[in-house]
Amino acid sequence: MDKLNKYSILALEKGVNIKKSQKLLIRSSVDNADFVRTLTELAWKRGAKDVMVQWFDDKINRKRYLYGDSDIFGIESKWYIEYINKIIEEDYQIITVISSNPENLKDIDPEKITKESKVISKMLKPLGERMMDYTIQWSIIALPCKEWAVKVFPNAKTPEEAVNLMWEAIFKVTLIDDNDPIENWDNHIKNLSVQTKKIQDYNFKSLIFKNSLGTDLEIGLPKGHIWVSGEKKSKKGNSFIANIPTYEVFTAPHRDEVNGIVYSTKPLIYMGNVIDKFWIKFQNGKAVEYKAEVGNEFLEKMITIHPNADFLGEVALVPHSSPISQSGLLWYNTLYDENASCHIALGKAYPSTLAGSENLSEEERMAKGLNQSLSHNDFMIGSACMNIIGKTEDGKEIQVFKDGEWSI
Amino acid sequence: MDKLNKYSILALEKGVNIKKSQKLLIRSSVDNADFVRTLTELAWKRGAKDVMVQWFDDKINRKRYLYGDSDIFGIESKWYIEYINKIIEEDYQIITVISSNPENLKDIDPEKITKESKVISKMLKPLGERMMDYTIQWSIIALPCKEWAVKVFPNAKTPEEAVNLMWEAIFKVTLIDDNDPIENWDNHIKNLSVQTKKIQDYNFKSLIFKNSLGTDLEIGLPKGHIWVSGEKKSKKGNSFIANIPTYEVFTAPHRDEVNGIVYSTKPLIYMGNVIDKFWIKFQNGKAVEYKAEVGNEFLEKMITIHPNADFLGEVALVPHSSPISQSGLLWYNTLYDENASCHIALGKAYPSTLAGSENLSEEERMAKGLNQSLSHNDFMIGSACMNIIGKTEDGKEIQVFKDGEWSI
Repeated sequence: MDKLNKYSILALEKGVNIKKSQKLLIRSSVDNADFVRTLTELAWKRGAKDVMVQWFDDKINRKRYLYGDSDIFGIESKWYIEYINKIIEEDYQIITVISSNPENLKDIDPEKITKESKVISKMLKPLGERMMDYTIQWSIIALPCKEWAVKVFPNAKTPEEAVNLMWEAIFKVTLIDDNDPIENWDNHIKNLSVQTKKIQDYNFKSLIFKNSLGTDLEIGLPKGHIWVSGEKKSKKGNSFIANIPTYEVFTAPHRDEVNGIVYSTKPLIYMGNVIDKFWIKFQNGKAVEYKAEVGNEFLEKMITIHPNADFLGEVALVPHSSPISQSGLLWYNTLYDENASCHIALGKAYPSTLAGSENLSEEERMAKGLNQSLSHNDFMIGSACMNIIGKTEDGKEIQVFKDGEWSI
Repeated sequence: MDKLNKYSILALEKGVNIKKSQKLLIRSSVDNADFVRTLTELAWKRGAKDVMVQWFDDKINRKRYLYGDSDIFGIESKWYIEYINKIIEEDYQIITVISSNPENLKDIDPEKITKESKVISKMLKPLGERMMDYTIQWSIIALPCKEWAVKVFPNAKTPEEAVNLMWEAIFKVTLIDDNDPIENWDNHIKNLSVQTKKIQDYNFKSLIFKNSLGTDLEIGLPKGHIWVSGEKKSKKGNSFIANIPTYEVFTAPHRDEVNGIVYSTKPLIYMGNVIDKFWIKFQNGKAVEYKAEVGNEFLEKMITIHPNADFLGEVALVPHSSPISQSGLLWYNTLYDENASCHIALGKAYPSTLAGSENLSEEERMAKGLNQSLSHNDFMIGSACMNIIGKTEDGKEIQVFKDGEWSI
């Protein structure tokens, strides 16, 4: 079996893990039609009840932003709301196949992008909830495209060579090799869960991040926080892997207990634009000051776009020796870059990261420290010089990360 | 400028003829993404207000029919009804880019296809009305795909060679050559309209089709029938070309005044299957008996699927010397094959083919002889041996076609 086939099996059987009689929605760029066709075939053969595909195209999307008047953006769409309703009511599981030009919306009027992004987030909210609280199984997997590959491999002689190099790199970090991909992933998940159990057992009160870039950030953790990694379980009890690849162990910060300053360590792609070399100061959880050398306007959008987008919803630990980090590549895509580096996310927290939160209202979750927002944007803060100290409830200080690596 | 570019300009500027501030919907297979991107760029540059793309994929569609249980077909979809509403309310003009495997649904349970086809026709009805009565500008244009090309060029050594041969053939009959495509089409439309005026001036009471295959069919024409060809005018006064290519001159039959027997002269693709070598007997307009040597089950579906699908809604004259006919190719696609041959259509008549019908209700149109139905299916009856006699109101008989060619 070739690697591409193994990759599609990984996505379908281990990623979204579609079961007999379940419905599947595949969201994908039109450029990935062949891969999507393979996924649909696999889903049907597993006994899927229905398979639906939602197509999009970066290039056509860019043209719309480029040429369209501002007044066509940010408008609620009845049909799209009904479409989302269908996906919810008929309990579709979801695979998203991403492969996008990191700078697809470069030089586009940010107001257009923000207007559209706001209304889309609002329309997607009920679906987003179901994904974040694991009501459904879902998975995100990436395929190279030329525009993306040449950004990751700027020295490749041709875009085709860049795409080939990118495939090699993707297969490496998604554990696609001569062995059975499912077996590879089962081992990988087991390793991640060992580390997850270790940090869980400390039941830390807070984590203090420090490095030589100037980061000095204390992140309080809510009582009953749960560290999560690798495989998740849906409410129906089906396992799934939300991100392919995944090397993170994460939990929820207490939204009101984040203080200090943090420096980014990798560029961040937000709304088709690059934000780079930035810092954010937090006071009682809120991002009160920030500055990016590149894309400051977009950093500001990210922090101010929705209520509570200026509070943290995730803290994730990834050792500097993670295979993605060791690839030495800058991926210009959060799915990859966040799995190469410790990261934190502004916006909504995953309910699964707090014990007993599944039956709580948004207000009750907030009261327990779990941030609620329409957005969730990870950004990378880890590096080879990251040190993390964990404070326990009884006042002990434990070295969790030393020089970028796990030390517990 | 290369021919493909000229072809996209033809589709956008002459086909749908998108105007400043108009909205455009493009319906296309995902395989034609590059062509669609060019169309969107052209539309934006002409000042379109918005451009939306509805993607589909034959291969994924086939898998759904192949593996899906019967109960997932034929279900009304709220989101799709809202989508159609949007297209209507916001006055989108429409280009459809077809390129499909003629036998895409071969060996699929016809019940699944029929259930789905019925509900789609029902949901599309309000949009279909707007297209058929020329409220909006619309155009259909075809691009080759491998599965289609190998059917048209069965002797090509590779699918790629078949696609290349098909491009050549398409460019030839759509008048894409070294000259300006718009100028070529202006001349072509002028020639068609000369012939259209000639037959209009006779104001025939009926046409009698006879050939050596056994066809002997009298088609009554309603009082006030109008012969139409080439360029149409939308209700807003914008010209457009609904079919690229087009070589037909057509009008409405009187739905109750069709008598005799007609033999098909080319295979017909209906719901992804081939119907071939068939005849239909008409009595007072109604198809009372029929038989196909190939695909009889689908012929039956076509005639019985909707109320009034067993009455005629179009009669179209195309000389045997039409360039598409002269290509000597069987296209296995009605857009091409109907422009190679005289044809008639079961189902709905175009309101534009009867004077004063635009303000009439469906019932009033029916009373004047204009058939009303959810479907409209052309099939080919012309050949080198077709003779057509026109009977005038005052009882004269005029030879309209002699041995497959215009004789007036």
